[in-house]
Amino acid sequence: MAAVLMLRGSARLLYKHRKVRAVSIAMVCSRAMASKTPVGFIGLGNMGNPMAKNLVKHGYPVVAYDVFPEACKEFQDSGAQVMDSPADVAERADRIITMLPSSPNAVEVYTGANGILKKVKKGSLLIDSSTIDPAVSKEIAKAVEKMGAVFMDAPVSGGVGAARAGNLTFMVGGVEQEFDAAKELLTCMGSNVIYCGEVGTGQAAKICNNMLLAISMIGTAEAMNLGIRLGLDPKLLAKILNMSSGRCWSSDTYNPVPGVMEGVPSANNYQGGFGTTLMAKDLGLAQITATNTKTPVPLGSLAHQIYRMMCAKGYALKDFSAVFQFLREEENL
Amino acid sequence: MAAVLMLRGSARLLYKHRKVRAVSIAMVCSRAMASKTPVGFIGLGNMGNPMAKNLVKHGYPVVAYDVFPEACKEFQDSGAQVMDSPADVAERADRIITMLPSSPNAVEVYTGANGILKKVKKGSLLIDSSTIDPAVSKEIAKAVEKMGAVFMDAPVSGGVGAARAGNLTFMVGGVEQEFDAAKELLTCMGSNVIYCGEVGTGQAAKICNNMLLAISMIGTAEAMNLGIRLGLDPKLLAKILNMSSGRCWSSDTYNPVPGVMEGVPSANNYQGGFGTTLMAKDLGLAQITATNTKTPVPLGSLAHQIYRMMCAKGYALKDFSAVFQFLREEENL
Amino acid sequence: MAAVLMLRGSARLLYKHRKVRAVSIAMVCSRAMASKTPVGFIGLGNMGNPMAKNLVKHGYPVVAYDVFPEACKEFQDSGAQVMDSPADVAERADRIITMLPSSPNAVEVYTGANGILKKVKKGSLLIDSSTIDPAVSKEIAKAVEKMGAVFMDAPVSGGVGAARAGNLTFMVGGVEQEFDAAKELLTCMGSNVIYCGEVGTGQAAKICNNMLLAISMIGTAEAMNLGIRLGLDPKLLAKILNMSSGRCWSSDTYNPVPGVMEGVPSANNYQGGFGTTLMAKDLGLAQITATNTKTPVPLGSLAHQIYRMMCAKGYALKDFSAVFQFLREEENL
Amino acid sequence: MAAVLMLRGSARLLYKHRKVRAVSIAMVCSRAMASKTPVGFIGLGNMGNPMAKNLVKHGYPVVAYDVFPEACKEFQDSGAQVMDSPADVAERADRIITMLPSSPNAVEVYTGANGILKKVKKGSLLIDSSTIDPAVSKEIAKAVEKMGAVFMDAPVSGGVGAARAGNLTFMVGGVEQEFDAAKELLTCMGSNVIYCGEVGTGQAAKICNNMLLAISMIGTAEAMNLGIRLGLDPKLLAKILNMSSGRCWSSDTYNPVPGVMEGVPSANNYQGGFGTTLMAKDLGLAQITATNTKTPVPLGSLAHQIYRMMCAKGYALKDFSAVFQFLREEENL
Repeated sequence: MAAVLMLRGSARLLYKHRKVRAVSIAMVCSRAMASKTPVGFIGLGNMGNPMAKNLVKHGYPVVAYDVFPEACKEFQDSGAQVMDSPADVAERADRIITMLPSSPNAVEVYTGANGILKKVKKGSLLIDSSTIDPAVSKEIAKAVEKMGAVFMDAPVSGGVGAARAGNLTFMVGGVEQEFDAAKELLTCMGSNVIYCGEVGTGQAAKICNNMLLAISMIGTAEAMNLGIRLGLDPKLLAKILNMSSGRCWSSDTYNPVPGVMEGVPSANNYQGGFGTTLMAKDLGLAQITATNTKTPVPLGSLAHQIYRMMCAKGYALKDFSAVFQFLREEENL
Repeated sequence: MAAVLMLRGSARLLYKHRKVRAVSIAMVCSRAMASKTPVGFIGLGNMGNPMAKNLVKHGYPVVAYDVFPEACKEFQDSGAQVMDSPADVAERADRIITMLPSSPNAVEVYTGANGILKKVKKGSLLIDSSTIDPAVSKEIAKAVEKMGAVFMDAPVSGGVGAARAGNLTFMVGGVEQEFDAAKELLTCMGSNVIYCGEVGTGQAAKICNNMLLAISMIGTAEAMNLGIRLGLDPKLLAKILNMSSGRCWSSDTYNPVPGVMEGVPSANNYQGGFGTTLMAKDLGLAQITATNTKTPVPLGSLAHQIYRMMCAKGYALKDFSAVFQFLREEENL
Repeated sequence: MAAVLMLRGSARLLYKHRKVRAVSIAMVCSRAMASKTPVGFIGLGNMGNPMAKNLVKHGYPVVAYDVFPEACKEFQDSGAQVMDSPADVAERADRIITMLPSSPNAVEVYTGANGILKKVKKGSLLIDSSTIDPAVSKEIAKAVEKMGAVFMDAPVSGGVGAARAGNLTFMVGGVEQEFDAAKELLTCMGSNVIYCGEVGTGQAAKICNNMLLAISMIGTAEAMNLGIRLGLDPKLLAKILNMSSGRCWSSDTYNPVPGVMEGVPSANNYQGGFGTTLMAKDLGLAQITATNTKTPVPLGSLAHQIYRMMCAKGYALKDFSAVFQFLREEENL
Repeated sequence: MAAVLMLRGSARLLYKHRKVRAVSIAMVCSRAMASKTPVGFIGLGNMGNPMAKNLVKHGYPVVAYDVFPEACKEFQDSGAQVMDSPADVAERADRIITMLPSSPNAVEVYTGANGILKKVKKGSLLIDSSTIDPAVSKEIAKAVEKMGAVFMDAPVSGGVGAARAGNLTFMVGGVEQEFDAAKELLTCMGSNVIYCGEVGTGQAAKICNNMLLAISMIGTAEAMNLGIRLGLDPKLLAKILNMSSGRCWSSDTYNPVPGVMEGVPSANNYQGGFGTTLMAKDLGLAQITATNTKTPVPLGSLAHQIYRMMCAKGYALKDFSAVFQFLREEENL
């Protein structure tokens, strides 16, 4: 293993002429070689908790922090070490993973009064798995670079179940020569680790995928609902769509109409799965990103509004495929 | 073959108690047994012409009509017989296929002054492959039934190329026991013949599929465009979407971004394929159908408006995947 | 009165050179001169009933029909004469007003088996105050003209209250030289009678107005809701909008926010006023008309979808300004 | 004048118990009493330049800064004093008005390396007339308060013409007891100065108004276009709308259809007025604000997308009423 990592260290030398970095090779090598040195983990929520536990399972000593003491307590009971602040985590670990609910939280954890950057070591690798505005990822990356450390954004797809099972998908943005170092840790938590490009592109990939997902899910719900009202059998209609040009993941893998498929949230009263409120959040990010880049996203924009309305109409905690139910409700005077 | 058809005749007897029909078994059997008796074909346009020629290739004597004399002339030159009106076609053939551009045309061809119903024989099988409002299909079906004949709607998916190659997909609505008789003819022109349910459900299936297709195509164009502006490589983004929950036919089989795939309209300046103006027509049908059934279709409705605007902005004849180009155009002052 | 009517008769002569009609002057004059001859009224619903009663109040003998016997009974009790069919009404009256809920009803009443046209007298004036598709109005007009009679579309704005008070607004389409004859009757029921142009333009004017009304109502609700969430006082915000470029009827005369104005539905739990289900119907007509004329109406289309969803979410019978309440509901997990 | 201002100073004492401020009365009084002491002005663009000149006309010595040297030069030639940075302006003037193109510019001018806050005097009154995200206004206000100064947001409505003529409308947010001091300066540049509430509500009022304006403008364009295609005369239709519930500022004061009104951009090929690109910017702010407050704004959101598309289709510099032209373009194959 060490040999491979050294090689990675050498590979960096080859890249060096392309992009000069403030990170000294020596620092990075020492970090990389000691692969079972402590790994920091900040954010022990529904997703972060099982992710961090998977790191522990893979033999990494985890040094953790969460703003909620109860979250820390639970994690500590499982044998991990808990710190008093992100800064303290950074003092103890030169590889840190963060998993936070929103852009402001991420900014606070990195650049706040007791943030990581207060005590970060040169050459540290900081991986943010939160889903946030890619522009914010880029700003954090700049601040991290100034301290001589490395930042990568690595948002996940897959929910709590995938987090527990360790088969999340990570979409990673950042300097390519650091990708292997990040992958070493991320493969403990996910089955799929994809390099997307420079910092922010991990977020971009996730946002774009989820925007398209929301659009095709609502589209599937509309098409199925219309077809049913026109006399088509739901299973037959799904079959026709799936062998035709209307086919999409929402129609063939996660069909929103009860009775069409088994083992999906629509078969279980829309429980479990990916919550409407989380989809609304991701669509909000897509909206802000598109607005800031002057990119027209008419359907993405309307999808956002629909999930927003669903949140206000009692669907917040249901799976996002419940849009079928939302649209299906019949008019009655 | 005759045996099978007889069997089909018997099968009809079994169904008879379920749904009494005005069609006498004797008539139907005589029609079905004489499978190479003339077949009528009305509507020799871009689609109808190659469809009718495939019937000829399969050995059926075709008796045809089109409102445009030139279309008739061209078809006559290829050896077929041409009549002076739909009524005359109905006098000569007890199986007729119609392929017309819009609901009013279909109404005229069936119930007009020189329409099919003026001279239709009892027990005739009338198959309409036009894409029209399913409510109109049902009205025509009622009028046809009153004359003791059988009507099925069988709109197609697949364009002119598929019509020529004989591998269209037919979505068929009508009495189930007539499906085999219809299939016999339709398999000469298509590789896929799907029974959808009662009259109008063929139209319903097509409309629903195309509405979902339009939505996921625009969604793919939006997601790809946003991703590219955020720094993602188009091919990489397509790959990520296609292994994730954003995957759809528009992203993995017909990607709208030039350079991502070969052999699709986006690789050929959006020429060929399925024209924007045709997609706008189908979305208009979806809109009218949804309005009449009080079905909410917010994304379908906006997709319709977008294709409508594209038609007015010079995209009418381009493939409908050109929505990527339409949305991509950069702002410049 | 007779003098004035003669003058009107003469005025008609002056117009004659502009547009030759199949209606003989003699017939029309005889109809017009006998201004207190019976007037037919078909459709005695929530609107039609008080409208017909206003004709009675103005001294016109009314000959009525409604498909529901109870509606006829109630009207008969108030002293009017009730017939057995639209045809019978046409036999007795050469001026008829129809007030029906939808396009198919109108088609049936005019061209059905016992419809007006079965017994209509040459030169009769038939005024349809239903709100229907202008294309249907034109078709009915053609059928009426063939019988040597005159058809005008004259949909109303104003609800049941205005119908009772006799201050509806009529938007009238049809031959201009017949406008005065129509106005004579319509002014008994409305305070505002506007000539819009040829047949169908009355419907067009109403549909366009109501589409813009729906759009600006939803817009007002969105702007007020956003402003309130951003800390603005609702009354102050309404005042600012009303002195600025955001001003509209929905903001300054019918504000949808409870507490901003008195005497409007928002001050009374959205009771009374113009029902959401009626607005959804008018927007559906706008949608179908726009689709058939290939006119892009992106906001009108989305407004339709929003009112459609409101109907399914329990708002069908509330005033259409309840869209504020619909959008305002807070997200809560 | 001094008496009035003293009174204002006293009024402040009355308010003091309600909201304790870090601003010493003494400082404020000295600022207020010396009403013709220099006033700072930062941002000398199309709007800022004529606004600052109006201050000069009213006898205020203006101390100015702009990031573009040419803008400074032009202003200097007209007799004003130009500084090297916002900080230098703050050193010379205790009342400063800023007029900047976007949120990041405002943040930079206030909190940047050479920003106002580097040298701001205690008790200074800082008024930002930029149109920016109200959340950013609030953040700037906090930073300003920490320095013992006062911040108000005061975005304008009215374009370059109104800026020159001195009849802009200012919507002002901030501590109410400072409103008179702000008004003293703002009335030199505008005819209408409205107090909206706490910091950020000026922006909120402007954003809400412009969002409703965009919605009703597009709605007017759609309704007029549909009506015209249905055979209505544009002037007549406008008249009908304006006496009905569809009436709005866009229909009765700024009609987007050429030939309906004089003296508006639609009468002059959509030149002058309020540019599409500026409307798109304001709608982007509305979108971001709505997203951040989880407020559903379906029509506002779609209006944003439509203006975004217009910018990409060559309408960026045309008046925003050109949406009529954008929607009107006919389909042609």
